[in-house]
Amino acid sequence: MSFKHLQIDAPKPWPHNAWYQAAWIHELNDTPIARMFLDEPVVLFRGKAGEAYALEDRCCHRATPLHLGEVVDGGLQCGYHGLVFDGAGKCVEIPGQDTIPPQAQVRSYPVVEQQEIVWIWMGDPALADDRLIIDFPYLDDHENHPHGHGLLEIDCNHMLLVDNLMDLTHIPYIHKKTIGGGDQKGQVNATMDVTKKDTGVHYIRWMENIVPPPTYRKAADWGDNVMVDRWQEFEYVAPASVLQWTGALECGRGAKQNRFQEGGFSARVWHTATPRTETSCFYFWAATNSFLPKDKAATEKLHSEVAKTFDEDIAFLEQQQACLSANPDRASVDIKHDVARKPARATLERMIRAEAEALATAAE
Amino acid sequence: MSFKHLQIDAPKPWPHNAWYQAAWIHELNDTPIARMFLDEPVVLFRGKAGEAYALEDRCCHRATPLHLGEVVDGGLQCGYHGLVFDGAGKCVEIPGQDTIPPQAQVRSYPVVEQQEIVWIWMGDPALADDRLIIDFPYLDDHENHPHGHGLLEIDCNHMLLVDNLMDLTHIPYIHKKTIGGGDQKGQVNATMDVTKKDTGVHYIRWMENIVPPPTYRKAADWGDNVMVDRWQEFEYVAPASVLQWTGALECGRGAKQNRFQEGGFSARVWHTATPRTETSCFYFWAATNSFLPKDKAATEKLHSEVAKTFDEDIAFLEQQQACLSANPDRASVDIKHDVARKPARATLERMIRAEAEALATAAE
Amino acid sequence: MSFKHLQIDAPKPWPHNAWYQAAWIHELNDTPIARMFLDEPVVLFRGKAGEAYALEDRCCHRATPLHLGEVVDGGLQCGYHGLVFDGAGKCVEIPGQDTIPPQAQVRSYPVVEQQEIVWIWMGDPALADDRLIIDFPYLDDHENHPHGHGLLEIDCNHMLLVDNLMDLTHIPYIHKKTIGGGDQKGQVNATMDVTKKDTGVHYIRWMENIVPPPTYRKAADWGDNVMVDRWQEFEYVAPASVLQWTGALECGRGAKQNRFQEGGFSARVWHTATPRTETSCFYFWAATNSFLPKDKAATEKLHSEVAKTFDEDIAFLEQQQACLSANPDRASVDIKHDVARKPARATLERMIRAEAEALATAAE
Repeated sequence: MSFKHLQIDAPKPWPHNAWYQAAWIHELNDTPIARMFLDEPVVLFRGKAGEAYALEDRCCHRATPLHLGEVVDGGLQCGYHGLVFDGAGKCVEIPGQDTIPPQAQVRSYPVVEQQEIVWIWMGDPALADDRLIIDFPYLDDHENHPHGHGLLEIDCNHMLLVDNLMDLTHIPYIHKKTIGGGDQKGQVNATMDVTKKDTGVHYIRWMENIVPPPTYRKAADWGDNVMVDRWQEFEYVAPASVLQWTGALECGRGAKQNRFQEGGFSARVWHTATPRTETSCFYFWAATNSFLPKDKAATEKLHSEVAKTFDEDIAFLEQQQACLSANPDRASVDIKHDVARKPARATLERMIRAEAEALATAAE
Repeated sequence: MSFKHLQIDAPKPWPHNAWYQAAWIHELNDTPIARMFLDEPVVLFRGKAGEAYALEDRCCHRATPLHLGEVVDGGLQCGYHGLVFDGAGKCVEIPGQDTIPPQAQVRSYPVVEQQEIVWIWMGDPALADDRLIIDFPYLDDHENHPHGHGLLEIDCNHMLLVDNLMDLTHIPYIHKKTIGGGDQKGQVNATMDVTKKDTGVHYIRWMENIVPPPTYRKAADWGDNVMVDRWQEFEYVAPASVLQWTGALECGRGAKQNRFQEGGFSARVWHTATPRTETSCFYFWAATNSFLPKDKAATEKLHSEVAKTFDEDIAFLEQQQACLSANPDRASVDIKHDVARKPARATLERMIRAEAEALATAAE
Repeated sequence: MSFKHLQIDAPKPWPHNAWYQAAWIHELNDTPIARMFLDEPVVLFRGKAGEAYALEDRCCHRATPLHLGEVVDGGLQCGYHGLVFDGAGKCVEIPGQDTIPPQAQVRSYPVVEQQEIVWIWMGDPALADDRLIIDFPYLDDHENHPHGHGLLEIDCNHMLLVDNLMDLTHIPYIHKKTIGGGDQKGQVNATMDVTKKDTGVHYIRWMENIVPPPTYRKAADWGDNVMVDRWQEFEYVAPASVLQWTGALECGRGAKQNRFQEGGFSARVWHTATPRTETSCFYFWAATNSFLPKDKAATEKLHSEVAKTFDEDIAFLEQQQACLSANPDRASVDIKHDVARKPARATLERMIRAEAEALATAAE
């Protein structure tokens, strides 16, 4: 399957040669799922033997979506005239016809299942290298890091979600009724240590000697007067993922020197925002209970608290997108807190540019 | 009324100089009906004497839809400022004004009522020839061919519906729970005899010595072991109609030599898909009970069974249209079963091209 | 704040340098209101001291709508990252940042509160002159002219509403079940005295010796046989307002010589249609009970009767707009009753042209 359908002269705000999260592994079964990624309609399903596949969601015969069909021996059968496509997108059966023309095939996308995530490669299959997939070992370590996860469809460009995570000074405003409650000034004035990387941006914020937010206090069973050293460590990995480690230890335990201590509060959070269209995305997230892993109720409580927070974000992000779409060329003013957001954006743009140049070179 | 509003340089996927079904005759009365045909807003109504009319649904004064008005002596009165238009579209009254300017008129469309169908001519009225109207004598023969009918608005190009009827191998897939149940292979492997005609395509499919579908069995009161010779005869008449005769006789009665025998199962089905826009149409259909014409319950049962089938089609057709609209230029692969569909499409394109050429010649 | 964002080469169907009604004064409080005027998103709010402001509804930092934020000391705070903007649109606080870049500001619009109306100036603030605001002293004279008012969002160009009010022969048709009941001919044949003005059009219609409509009869407590002299005085003031005085006196009292007499029926009606987009507007209206000002029930009854009338208009106006949008270039035919409507349109076009010329000159 070639990569020729991509148009050099119609740039999209995402790279194609990259792994994107397509689903959570438990979502896939023998009922086909329709999902659009990077403006392309995709159907996800498991074959009879349980293996995961991703095909173009459009029959090559009469353009019917294949997700209306069903999984049969040999692949996915179109629900209109019965053509069957195998996991590579090749038509392997045309009912009532003996020979199958070679052009009877649909696009297929490389798929990898790893650490509870189904990854899809939307670009040139020849470049799909499993070693490029992000390692986030917490999601399948159910003993030490039990988690809850979610999937939200948001009507905004996927980078608005990344922007959101790259500037946490929004927390005391958007989330003032939830995780942003308490010491507003202290949160805004956290120290911020940013490191640019080839693959994105890493930062760590420290709030030393601060009142812990209610969520943390309950989780760690801290008394009213306990003060903590709190950190928020984030890494954006282009094009679409953000890896988070959030935690706090009582003051005096030397958190800044060593965060790997028993007790306190600790959560690993997975975020990825797979582009659906230029103004919509799939937001996959998961939050681990890394502080009381044996406590199921704590895991569930953490999950529901985090879910609530994301609902607050969505309301803003969708209206922000509407504002941007109405006046796409209007300038914006950067502030000090854009210190991680800007290099994150720059990484993505670099990646898009490199891909466009490679395509242009190949076309010469 | 001239035909000059048609633009030579903006071709539409339909001919204008053709009769299209506008309504069932019983739909029309003195309450105006708004209906868009071929991208043009039309108002249908009966005058005080009961005669059917079709006018442009837009007052020439201030562009108010005329269907908001009411039928009065002399024609249709605009509900905004009271202008009255006769059946030819000429303004015959302007309240409070003595003289009526000659340009005060709206487009009118030739209308013919025949065999329970209201036909409309959307093109040059000078070319509207009643003799071009399709003859389907079953619809007004209530004694021998009682029928039930329907009207559906479908969000697809009208030819997707014609395509559907030109390739019946979809039946064992889309309709596998209804009329396509039973012998899937036998249905797919029916013989197919196709004849191209100037006005469209005719084909007949035979399934000899086959288990009859449940609908037929019940209708004909056949026992469990009866095997039948079954036929499906279809004719596409451009631009928008499909005439169907479906039936079966017990094996040994020589159905293939003579289908005009008493007993068995027999239904005449009328299909027409009048374009509304390029991606929507009005689907008019009717199915006659030609096997037990005196049995009202059988007529009703047939009607409800056929209606169910069309609901199954609509789900596919609308998603197919969405897929096509998203990527209109993507190539498709033809298969053996497109043998009637392709010449049907070719007839329509020939008709559109001929009309465009005639317009171009007239414009020179 | 400059006027430079306006594009000379993309004309809009409205002038910018004009006062438009933005709200009723009682609508504004410390909960921000989002409202689009002339295609621009605006947020309206009162500062802590109660003063009214109008800002661009888009934060200059990350394009979040400001109406999602809240009123704080000093201005309106963005709900995303906490930036605060004063009533002039200047950013006066960036949480966690000491200096504020001068380009950190949003557009602000002059606002004036007068006679219960909040007026906004969407054009060049340097030209915003309070003396240009329409004087309609009845709205804040609650003793002699108590009123009820309303606000409707209508999906039509604002001038369709003005057209409607400039040709009252629509009343016996659209409103035949309400205010247009009774003597249809008499209403259509009213005398019409039209005066063109620099700022718009004035007209007065007289219906002498006519049966009063039921609304009037009840209001004035007239017996069955009372005949009246009835007037409808309207003035369109460009770009968007219509001032109305409607009334009737018993025949013989010399209404035509002197309408300022006790008794009879009399109502002052305020209409303004502020453009939202090219095909939608905010319709603000108010109707005074100037006949029995001490009678609260009469004021309420008048309000509900007038409200009902406008619902009848909206159904027509929105469908008229749909018809126009579908075929914007189709010609229309004027009739005698367009005598006030046409100069009203001409005034608006003159105003738009003058503004375009001034912009072009300034750009040279």
